[in-house]
Amino acid sequence: MSTTNHGWEKTIATHYNEAVEWRRQLHRNPQPGWLEFYSTGFVAEKLAEWGYELLLGEHIIAADKRANVPDFQTLEAEYDRAIKSGIKEQFVAPARGGLTGVVGILRGALPGPVVGFRFDIDGTAAMESDDPSHRPAAEGFVSQNRGYAHMCGHDVHTAMGLLLARHFAENRQTLKGTVKFLFQPNQEELNGAEAMVEKKTVDDVEFLLSGHVGINAMQVGQIATNVVDFMALSRFEVTYRGRSSHAALRPEDGRNALLGACAAVTNLHAISRHSDGASRVNVGFMQAGTTWNLIPEEACLRMETRGVTNGIHAFMVEKAREVLEGAARMYGLELEVKRAATALSAQSSPELIELGTSVAGKLASTADVLDETAYNASEDVTVMMERVQSKGGKALFVLFGTPVGGGHHSATFDVDERVILNGAQFLAAMHEEVAQAGQAQVSRGVCLCRKESRNLPA
Amino acid sequence: MSTTNHGWEKTIATHYNEAVEWRRQLHRNPQPGWLEFYSTGFVAEKLAEWGYELLLGEHIIAADKRANVPDFQTLEAEYDRAIKSGIKEQFVAPARGGLTGVVGILRGALPGPVVGFRFDIDGTAAMESDDPSHRPAAEGFVSQNRGYAHMCGHDVHTAMGLLLARHFAENRQTLKGTVKFLFQPNQEELNGAEAMVEKKTVDDVEFLLSGHVGINAMQVGQIATNVVDFMALSRFEVTYRGRSSHAALRPEDGRNALLGACAAVTNLHAISRHSDGASRVNVGFMQAGTTWNLIPEEACLRMETRGVTNGIHAFMVEKAREVLEGAARMYGLELEVKRAATALSAQSSPELIELGTSVAGKLASTADVLDETAYNASEDVTVMMERVQSKGGKALFVLFGTPVGGGHHSATFDVDERVILNGAQFLAAMHEEVAQAGQAQVSRGVCLCRKESRNLPA
Amino acid sequence: MSTTNHGWEKTIATHYNEAVEWRRQLHRNPQPGWLEFYSTGFVAEKLAEWGYELLLGEHIIAADKRANVPDFQTLEAEYDRAIKSGIKEQFVAPARGGLTGVVGILRGALPGPVVGFRFDIDGTAAMESDDPSHRPAAEGFVSQNRGYAHMCGHDVHTAMGLLLARHFAENRQTLKGTVKFLFQPNQEELNGAEAMVEKKTVDDVEFLLSGHVGINAMQVGQIATNVVDFMALSRFEVTYRGRSSHAALRPEDGRNALLGACAAVTNLHAISRHSDGASRVNVGFMQAGTTWNLIPEEACLRMETRGVTNGIHAFMVEKAREVLEGAARMYGLELEVKRAATALSAQSSPELIELGTSVAGKLASTADVLDETAYNASEDVTVMMERVQSKGGKALFVLFGTPVGGGHHSATFDVDERVILNGAQFLAAMHEEVAQAGQAQVSRGVCLCRKESRNLPA
Amino acid sequence: MSTTNHGWEKTIATHYNEAVEWRRQLHRNPQPGWLEFYSTGFVAEKLAEWGYELLLGEHIIAADKRANVPDFQTLEAEYDRAIKSGIKEQFVAPARGGLTGVVGILRGALPGPVVGFRFDIDGTAAMESDDPSHRPAAEGFVSQNRGYAHMCGHDVHTAMGLLLARHFAENRQTLKGTVKFLFQPNQEELNGAEAMVEKKTVDDVEFLLSGHVGINAMQVGQIATNVVDFMALSRFEVTYRGRSSHAALRPEDGRNALLGACAAVTNLHAISRHSDGASRVNVGFMQAGTTWNLIPEEACLRMETRGVTNGIHAFMVEKAREVLEGAARMYGLELEVKRAATALSAQSSPELIELGTSVAGKLASTADVLDETAYNASEDVTVMMERVQSKGGKALFVLFGTPVGGGHHSATFDVDERVILNGAQFLAAMHEEVAQAGQAQVSRGVCLCRKESRNLPA
Repeated sequence: MSTTNHGWEKTIATHYNEAVEWRRQLHRNPQPGWLEFYSTGFVAEKLAEWGYELLLGEHIIAADKRANVPDFQTLEAEYDRAIKSGIKEQFVAPARGGLTGVVGILRGALPGPVVGFRFDIDGTAAMESDDPSHRPAAEGFVSQNRGYAHMCGHDVHTAMGLLLARHFAENRQTLKGTVKFLFQPNQEELNGAEAMVEKKTVDDVEFLLSGHVGINAMQVGQIATNVVDFMALSRFEVTYRGRSSHAALRPEDGRNALLGACAAVTNLHAISRHSDGASRVNVGFMQAGTTWNLIPEEACLRMETRGVTNGIHAFMVEKAREVLEGAARMYGLELEVKRAATALSAQSSPELIELGTSVAGKLASTADVLDETAYNASEDVTVMMERVQSKGGKALFVLFGTPVGGGHHSATFDVDERVILNGAQFLAAMHEEVAQAGQAQVSRGVCLCRKESRNLPA
Repeated sequence: MSTTNHGWEKTIATHYNEAVEWRRQLHRNPQPGWLEFYSTGFVAEKLAEWGYELLLGEHIIAADKRANVPDFQTLEAEYDRAIKSGIKEQFVAPARGGLTGVVGILRGALPGPVVGFRFDIDGTAAMESDDPSHRPAAEGFVSQNRGYAHMCGHDVHTAMGLLLARHFAENRQTLKGTVKFLFQPNQEELNGAEAMVEKKTVDDVEFLLSGHVGINAMQVGQIATNVVDFMALSRFEVTYRGRSSHAALRPEDGRNALLGACAAVTNLHAISRHSDGASRVNVGFMQAGTTWNLIPEEACLRMETRGVTNGIHAFMVEKAREVLEGAARMYGLELEVKRAATALSAQSSPELIELGTSVAGKLASTADVLDETAYNASEDVTVMMERVQSKGGKALFVLFGTPVGGGHHSATFDVDERVILNGAQFLAAMHEEVAQAGQAQVSRGVCLCRKESRNLPA
Repeated sequence: MSTTNHGWEKTIATHYNEAVEWRRQLHRNPQPGWLEFYSTGFVAEKLAEWGYELLLGEHIIAADKRANVPDFQTLEAEYDRAIKSGIKEQFVAPARGGLTGVVGILRGALPGPVVGFRFDIDGTAAMESDDPSHRPAAEGFVSQNRGYAHMCGHDVHTAMGLLLARHFAENRQTLKGTVKFLFQPNQEELNGAEAMVEKKTVDDVEFLLSGHVGINAMQVGQIATNVVDFMALSRFEVTYRGRSSHAALRPEDGRNALLGACAAVTNLHAISRHSDGASRVNVGFMQAGTTWNLIPEEACLRMETRGVTNGIHAFMVEKAREVLEGAARMYGLELEVKRAATALSAQSSPELIELGTSVAGKLASTADVLDETAYNASEDVTVMMERVQSKGGKALFVLFGTPVGGGHHSATFDVDERVILNGAQFLAAMHEEVAQAGQAQVSRGVCLCRKESRNLPA
Repeated sequence: MSTTNHGWEKTIATHYNEAVEWRRQLHRNPQPGWLEFYSTGFVAEKLAEWGYELLLGEHIIAADKRANVPDFQTLEAEYDRAIKSGIKEQFVAPARGGLTGVVGILRGALPGPVVGFRFDIDGTAAMESDDPSHRPAAEGFVSQNRGYAHMCGHDVHTAMGLLLARHFAENRQTLKGTVKFLFQPNQEELNGAEAMVEKKTVDDVEFLLSGHVGINAMQVGQIATNVVDFMALSRFEVTYRGRSSHAALRPEDGRNALLGACAAVTNLHAISRHSDGASRVNVGFMQAGTTWNLIPEEACLRMETRGVTNGIHAFMVEKAREVLEGAARMYGLELEVKRAATALSAQSSPELIELGTSVAGKLASTADVLDETAYNASEDVTVMMERVQSKGGKALFVLFGTPVGGGHHSATFDVDERVILNGAQFLAAMHEEVAQAGQAQVSRGVCLCRKESRNLPA
């Protein structure tokens, strides 16, 4: 496989060690969804320093689209923790109360399209191993916020984004068009993308590039550019409210929320399979009632439905709603259904898949470009992708190979940090291609690979 | 126990052998609910012969209140059988199509109240034993209509009613007020009383007297005058209609009537117990779907609810409806609910209980008057009782003792035919009392027993 | 109603004000089941002071029969609170770890039977109102242990017991036989009686007397001596354990504990009604699973079954077990069932009901003796009663009238403290009768009422 | 597309009109599974006439592997009907009692492999349209056995087989190896193949060829040689047996088979989806109980499970069994599970797919050879295919295009009869290839296509 030497491959590499430090700093200070005050402030300060225009807080997050927002006490405690850990208040104050995330914009000196880059920044609620065999522990960057940890690699994503952002800032004079960095909160609960999209943050984006590290047992240097089978997903927090009553003295006065919930759970799982492809339903959590001799007044469910196409998923959601309402009717209950997460089955734009495959093949850092790779799970970046595509833009989601220690969400998740560099270089190369060709050509379905454009008259 | 010799005790007894023959003739020709063409014609001819005014067919049966009406072919076949068995067409023609039953009215020469007597006339769908150890077989009056039999004693009731009717006809010159005989069809399915009540057949009845033979292991000569704990009952024929679809090729196109029905069945049985007393629910029959690989389009249930008070029963019906509707909603089904039977938890009027206890105690044929006796099941005479009581009248339901062979609804049910005489005498004695005292006194709660009135200023 | 003046009616009354102070002191220091360290120490100290022999801790509580024992931290914290609130360690040390309760024994100078008195001592997990309209708040004895409160009157029971115990201590020279006071923990969860019975604490009791204040809207001065319809009860903590799995990536690897639990809950409620009388079933609490996208690995239920006879209750328990096991089989789950509470449908001994009715009728403090009174709920004193009766002894449970403020277990439960005196006097009078007559006569069914015995030759 | 002219293409064509007559004669005399006495006798007579060795009755059908065998009366009635319709008793007597089907064997003069051809012969339980717009009605070959009809084209398959069989008989001197015709009963209920395989009818078959007409909207002349996604399937007839009891008087004595069945149905549909691919479950029929007031004693279900791989299917069957057994345990029921149908997800042998594609492409009658075609449903020929392949042989299943009137199993299903000829010619051509190449080469994976053989010396 012949490779091309972009000048910037080296430039970016010169900042690699610094990016590793950023990643480790972020790794030490993990905070989960809607609490990413450290990441937010850390990113915002850097971007500001490099000349990016910042958008924060209510300008990028639709507060009412958020779900599972932690309680006030926790919000404040984690905010305070970020401040105490060195975050400057000016960069995080707009996020106070759980409006986390950063959008950074840099306009290049040359004309060109708006290219968006999305990186997720949230940690997970997990205990990170402090066993010396776990590299972050051995090398001193294990989580300092016990109970939370970056066990899904979003610290790596964030560092990759910063490395890329710095590259553009250093080359602003030759930068074509505008680069727009979307540092998204709460990917884990598939809730952050929708809150950002609602604020039109991607409405002007012509090309949206994103990815994830370490999925599917890929090695460092491998890139998967044709990722398929994103499952569209909805999560709902369902509450049934009935009426309590003494189970021995006046059972007939009760309206039994638990019985309603159980009817719902069983029949939700009995929703028909779909002949068009894979579907899923799960009630992952349920709590109802208080004590032995009271008829349960309230039951709370956390459920999700998925479908490998948006059509199958719509079917699942419609059927689920019928079941939920039917169960409420059965037991005379009030039903409240709150959406808690959304993902779509959006597909990367074929032109960008082709382009990405070509671009990756020519990077020195790329050992291997994989064929069609099934994702089989859900990613809320699909909500951004769908928005960009519905506006006529193009979107691409790729996978960057790295070993993952004990695995995603395990206590010993770990990465090969070279993936930071590989990812940033790939994205820089992609940007170069799309910025040069521009929106017009891509829309006409013209492949933008160097192989072809090279033959064009200068 | 001192007894009184009414002149008519003997008169009635003189016809006893004839009444036994009537009973056996009826026993040979059993027909179940809405098919009682033989009984109807048999009774009607006798009553007409004795000078009773007859009401038949649509004048006494509300066709649209009937449930479980057999199909046209069966209706016609059983009609023909009755004709072939000797019933004169003029007495049964109005009942053709399943409007069975007879009301016979006789106005006495003297003033007095309207006193109603209700007897049920339907047989059961059962095979009667033809073993020689079964007396009807040995003595030649076993069912000649195989598959049907009088295995609940309604032939005995009918003969008792005829014996009583003849008594009044023979004593019309001294008869006070009007006697109204209600020979009711389809008691077994608890559906005939409502159809008669709807036609206002008991709206003018001031005293309604009725009973059943052989309940509760009572001996010949025993009478229970204080029968309690009738269970109010509703029966429904429930149909869910969905949409069929190939279970492998297009499962998502189905609307699964079986799943809806199963959700209904399970949750119907989960309706709460009631702290006020006994309740019941049963789905006794269910059929759904056609074959292995089609999603069931239709499901049919036969269900009943009961309550030992009308309040408990209303609770059960309301909750059942919620469940049925909820299950329909769950699976996007159409729901049809047809009422198939009704009974209430009506209670005998206290004054008549007291009177009956006194009257029974003085009859030569009465060996024993029982205390409060629980019925624990349902009787549709309660619908008539409730109507009479709601119009200001009084009602009484009693039990007449007799052995019952192998038991009600067994293939070897049998009675001691003396119960025909005992019942007729008790009812004649009751009539004498209430006709003499009249409605006015009973309404004032004055006890009408001879015992007491006789002790008044001598 | 003629009354008798026992000398001791006055003696007991002289200590009434003191008993009120005890009650208020207990009311200020409520602790719920297995945490009653304050009550235990308070009672033990008083009984010791008055000459009672004490049994404490493992001598009276079978540790392994306890259910819902609080965690170690809570046990220690409440123990410390009791010490800090003035309880002397010597009286409570044996109860440390949740072996609460006191048995106090006093042997009289004269021969006579062993008479047991059972009083429950536990508070409830509830917030007591501190509104000035709530008398305990207004008069300064509201709960000082926020989150816990004596909202069921067991503080009153305890004070009544102490008042009675003091009476016997002061009259030891004329005391016939032995009095045995059983201050029982954890009545609220119906778990304390069984733990005490297991330690044979009532095996030598010939007459067991007990009661409850304020049930059934009775007024001060009313006593119900013929309490019926105790519901036999079992409570179970049920755990289903399956296997978690990612609900999108490997749903087939899961063993869904939630689905099993829901099948159990629905079908538990569908257990058939019983024709012999009232039954109950309730799943009052359920929790399962952790988060949206994991198949629930574990589900925990808290359920109870009841029956108005021990036979009905045994039926319910047997059927419940079938359902629980069937649901486990359905989803390949492990099932663990732990008994958490037991009550029986024991009945007061007829001779003591008769005696109690007579005794109460002659007390100056008794305004009214009620007829048969239905309890309709469950009391674990039944476990003691059943043990005493199975050994040939007699048992009685009565209700003492008092208003109850906002009602049992409400935040504003309150009593008329005169019920302390009324109860103590009734129990003292009962003791006088049974001690005089002795076990032999009662066993022969001889009624021991003064009315009758007074006529006997001295 | 270049085509080859086999001599026999014409020979076969000369018998086409006769084959059409056979087909119509069969179409007039449809009989469903285990009742195909007419088809059996018709085929047997023809094969015998042409010199085939016949195997019939118990020699080819394992009686105890049959499911859904009609009752004795129906078996005899349809047997008689076949005789009356002109079938000679000698050819059908061995099938009496439902052992239908024919195996015919012809040994060629030249050495060569055993090549099996499977054709299904059963009709469907359906009313065929007699509207003149329906060609069979217009042209006088509509079903003469009302209630049954060939609405799935198995009459066409049978005629195709006979046409092919005649071809081999006429060319026996040049026939290489042995041809073995398997005319299989009861394909519709997926039950006949297993019954034949059990009798080792395909154990000696080295190449097994089969197909179906009219699937997937293919036109005349189209052939699909690479049919995938057969769903493995199991059908079960499930019976729950409990204990009946009067629903009002003694509900507790019942063991409710309906409640057990409903628990099973609901939870069967809740069996988890499988991440490896499509699965299905359906309860297509249920009947339980008899009447309103009896607790249902028995419930019968007809259910099926499917999986697109044998592994998924095994998962479904295992889970279904857990659910069925769990439901029995829940309600104390006896459970009987009888297998009623079996299909596998067997795949055509790659070498034969390749060969078939090549062969079809060169036939004059073939307009089009389709790419990979999903079947998505179940076919019991897979049981034969699996057996042949497990013995080292090769198997192929193809689809032959034809319009289908109103569609399979509709009242107006109809075909373009030219498909009879097309199919016979394709199968003859396939036979020529495999007989020439022999088992050895195919086993070595050598492709036998003409494309390769073309390079051989002419």
